[in-house]
Amino acid sequence: MTRLASALATIFISLAGLAAYLTPASGEPAGEAAPIFGITLPEGYRDWRLISVAHEEGKLNDLRAILGNDTAIDAFRADQRPFPDGTIIARLAWDYEKLAESEAAFGQAQSYVAVHPKNGVQFMVKDSQKYAATDGWGYAHFNDGKPADAKVHETCHACHQAAKSRDFVFNRYAP
Amino acid sequence: MTRLASALATIFISLAGLAAYLTPASGEPAGEAAPIFGITLPEGYRDWRLISVAHEEGKLNDLRAILGNDTAIDAFRADQRPFPDGTIIARLAWDYEKLAESEAAFGQAQSYVAVHPKNGVQFMVKDSQKYAATDGWGYAHFNDGKPADAKVHETCHACHQAAKSRDFVFNRYAP
Repeated sequence: MTRLASALATIFISLAGLAAYLTPASGEPAGEAAPIFGITLPEGYRDWRLISVAHEEGKLNDLRAILGNDTAIDAFRADQRPFPDGTIIARLAWDYEKLAESEAAFGQAQSYVAVHPKNGVQFMVKDSQKYAATDGWGYAHFNDGKPADAKVHETCHACHQAAKSRDFVFNRYAP
Repeated sequence: MTRLASALATIFISLAGLAAYLTPASGEPAGEAAPIFGITLPEGYRDWRLISVAHEEGKLNDLRAILGNDTAIDAFRADQRPFPDGTIIARLAWDYEKLAESEAAFGQAQSYVAVHPKNGVQFMVKDSQKYAATDGWGYAHFNDGKPADAKVHETCHACHQAAKSRDFVFNRYAP
């Protein structure tokens, strides 16, 4: 190996090592962390299992799904409160429209189905040490994969106080 | 071993063998097959991934989730039509109620959340050979784990004709 080739090889290996250091083990970049709680978009959350479904009226006006990682699903099914560390709950939401094909089949407006993502994607992450100041919960809100600003995140735990008796989680498991 | 103990052991082993013969390999009984299409309740469907969410008005009046087995999810995400053999799509539904904790937090009626299962659980199963007479789809409807009668199953494919352009599937994938 010439000295040039050897030097280039050394640089290449160093860059590869640096990239490996900066990138999570999965190979996917973690993306920008949300303010206050420092949560990045959890990888693969769209593949998580279903906790429940809901409909929001008022300004939110959406159809939504609550998904959970394995720790969350196990805790919901075992009715375990407080939720154990490692629990992550995801809230997805979509605008919706009347399904024309269903209206044709039933002869009346009947089905309203999810269409486009709406109102961002939200997460609750349980870490009783890290988030001790907010009763063990960290919160994150992303719009199109980008974290919302600090002001949005300041409101999360105050609002979830209303569900304090269920460890600050609004939704229940839908069997 | 006495003759009595030996005889009891033989009976026990025979019963265990019979139980193994009558029970699917998974250890879970398959349950009663739905009429016409002969579909049993798919094991573990509640753990399947989410396709979409919807709301039905009129007599059905529910919040619902559409889940899919791995073949279904892959096909939806790849926009593959017609769906490949092995696709199974599940429709779950629940009644719903106003969430008191959310109303307290927002100061107005805001969130409607799933509560109890309602309107049974339905499945579409793709098998282009077995269900050739109904464009490759078999249908099943279960109430509390028991299949509905033949009359219910006679209506399925006729109604799904309205979604013929999407291979008879009403719902679309919610990203």
